[in-house]
Amino acid sequence: MLSISHRGTIMPASPIRKLVPYAEAAKNKGIKIYHLNIGQPDIETPKKILDAARNSDFKILEYSHSAGNESYRRKLVEYYQSVNININYRDIIITTGGSEAILFGFLSCLDAGDEVIIPEPFYANYNGFAVAADVVVKPITAHIENSFALPPMEEFEKVITEKTKAIVICNPNNPTGYLYSKEEMEVLKKIVLKHNLYLFSDEAYREFCYEGTHFSAMQLNGVADNVVMMDTISKRYSACGARIGALVTKNKKVTETALKFAQARLSPPTFGQIVGEAAIDLPSDYFKETKAEYKKRRDLIVKRLNNMPGVFCPQPGGAFYAMASLPIDDADIFCQWLLESFNYNNETVMLAPATGFYGTEELGKKEVRLAYVLNCDDINKAMDCLQKALEAYSKRNAI
Amino acid sequence: MLSISHRGTIMPASPIRKLVPYAEAAKNKGIKIYHLNIGQPDIETPKKILDAARNSDFKILEYSHSAGNESYRRKLVEYYQSVNININYRDIIITTGGSEAILFGFLSCLDAGDEVIIPEPFYANYNGFAVAADVVVKPITAHIENSFALPPMEEFEKVITEKTKAIVICNPNNPTGYLYSKEEMEVLKKIVLKHNLYLFSDEAYREFCYEGTHFSAMQLNGVADNVVMMDTISKRYSACGARIGALVTKNKKVTETALKFAQARLSPPTFGQIVGEAAIDLPSDYFKETKAEYKKRRDLIVKRLNNMPGVFCPQPGGAFYAMASLPIDDADIFCQWLLESFNYNNETVMLAPATGFYGTEELGKKEVRLAYVLNCDDINKAMDCLQKALEAYSKRNAI
Repeated sequence: MLSISHRGTIMPASPIRKLVPYAEAAKNKGIKIYHLNIGQPDIETPKKILDAARNSDFKILEYSHSAGNESYRRKLVEYYQSVNININYRDIIITTGGSEAILFGFLSCLDAGDEVIIPEPFYANYNGFAVAADVVVKPITAHIENSFALPPMEEFEKVITEKTKAIVICNPNNPTGYLYSKEEMEVLKKIVLKHNLYLFSDEAYREFCYEGTHFSAMQLNGVADNVVMMDTISKRYSACGARIGALVTKNKKVTETALKFAQARLSPPTFGQIVGEAAIDLPSDYFKETKAEYKKRRDLIVKRLNNMPGVFCPQPGGAFYAMASLPIDDADIFCQWLLESFNYNNETVMLAPATGFYGTEELGKKEVRLAYVLNCDDINKAMDCLQKALEAYSKRNAI
Repeated sequence: MLSISHRGTIMPASPIRKLVPYAEAAKNKGIKIYHLNIGQPDIETPKKILDAARNSDFKILEYSHSAGNESYRRKLVEYYQSVNININYRDIIITTGGSEAILFGFLSCLDAGDEVIIPEPFYANYNGFAVAADVVVKPITAHIENSFALPPMEEFEKVITEKTKAIVICNPNNPTGYLYSKEEMEVLKKIVLKHNLYLFSDEAYREFCYEGTHFSAMQLNGVADNVVMMDTISKRYSACGARIGALVTKNKKVTETALKFAQARLSPPTFGQIVGEAAIDLPSDYFKETKAEYKKRRDLIVKRLNNMPGVFCPQPGGAFYAMASLPIDDADIFCQWLLESFNYNNETVMLAPATGFYGTEELGKKEVRLAYVLNCDDINKAMDCLQKALEAYSKRNAI
């Protein structure tokens, strides 16, 4: 028999997308679903940047440079300067989404069997790229009671072995919304210097910080060779379908190596690069408005959640996610039940069970992630649904 | 010291792109370069399909389904029907270029250390994806004297071990332009059935066949589970920058597995999918015109090459590449010399040394690949340059 590869067999299906068939069935029954399950922003992509692609006038849709258009890379330097990250355009490789930046980072720095430490809960697709690169994820647990702050240095050191090559963080964090402080970043610096590790820093949500300011791994002094930043325009400009990201590092050996992987796949998408380049010229109040909108939603959803009996949701400092613990035994079953067996006024809510974000089995079973990518009215309605659902669910369990 | 991964270290730089600095230096000296080195078509992308993207009116540039838009996948079924490939839309996963289809195929079917047999010369980036997937390429040699026909079954069987999991072909072939006959495809079928192998079939150039008709691996009977087709719109519609391809197979386990890798990277590019979907509705004479143009160029370049003393260029049956052996010792040195030290009326020509297309060391040193992606006037001028260059080069060697 022809066999599927081992890595293909252990490759996890998307924990977020696995509920999709139940959602489709619910929709077919005429039930309206509030989607808080996936980080697809509802905020419109700035018309100006879509128009840049739509008004393009090239006659041949050509390959670009494998590292991305030089004009875009040079423009990006301006953007990074505006957030106090000082780099050269040669430190940037444009990737097909932040996803490819993660893959190129892993492939360039890690070999099969190498280990990466990731504070859990973490972005589930890190697992996917780890499997693709035959790399082993060693999770260390961040706790909801502690708002998912960075675990202390000892926790990292407990799992560091000679195979450990890197730490992966996402800041602000998906799925927790936690924003790492400068002090926490300094702890990470101490660890990577002491143990000679790469620090992969996924900063997809950099612009969405609601308390304090973002401190980038690229701003740490003395670890220029250790830090590899993964970035993307997907969330920043509601441009997920552009599939444009970037791998950014001052470590020249890493950019040289990543460029070879980039050359093998020829180039990132052309239209997406035009969108990305146009985004740098958006007026400076673009983020202000978007951020104000997300902050309003965050305040609402956190308040609504914490007002429900038995629910706890720590205040997220950034991104557009909140993690909440619910008075339930199994979030996977509950989230499926919400779609299969519940509705309130013919409406229900779709959430992401947190189990998919933990590397350690059995963790997160009472937790869900909520992406506040709906307007406040819809969030209120979604929270009405959730509140009624939790009441019904506890009664159902009592039977 | 932080180290680069082993695979990153052995990852080959693009053999085609490594001459780029010399080309840039020549351009800076005011020398015009005829680019026959890279498969970037000069033929305009059909305006209609660019307009489909430019006239799109969505407000949010969203993620698509990880397998690609269902509307596009359903449309593609029509396209494949038109070339006598009968599949269901569920047999298709839209990928980010043909490149990603190769990567997903390798990751889904092969593990680290597994072996794939590829007739050489072959598309150099197969090496890159093999390194990314930790897979070992076992080349078997096709010969220029034989027009690069498929090596006989015995040659395959000589290198088959228990680690052999797949054969990779490109048909019509890049870099040789060779079009595999139905009989040759039946030989491949015999081999993959006998030895229980996957047959990865890269059919990027399917529409460009100048003698006879294309026989797809998907048309072979009784090997539905073995065949995994890699496809792309890049060359077909001069739409390289769309970054849209497809992995196509009737093997449901492979599509299910590839979908997991597809989910990890979220989705293929949105604008590119619109371009791809619109392409299915191009008038049926689109390929006729494009093919006629490429055929004219092929006839010209092959004739010009074979008229040069000491040059041999077998007639390519498809794609837009020709391989030629030249009266030189080292194609890498010669191609660099063309850019660094030669010009004819302030013009020169850029070729791809064939060494990068061979897996076996020392092969292809007298050969170059020429991509006929220039119009006939420019091809004539480029061939004038090459002819003068070969004369000058032989005199230079004689000194």
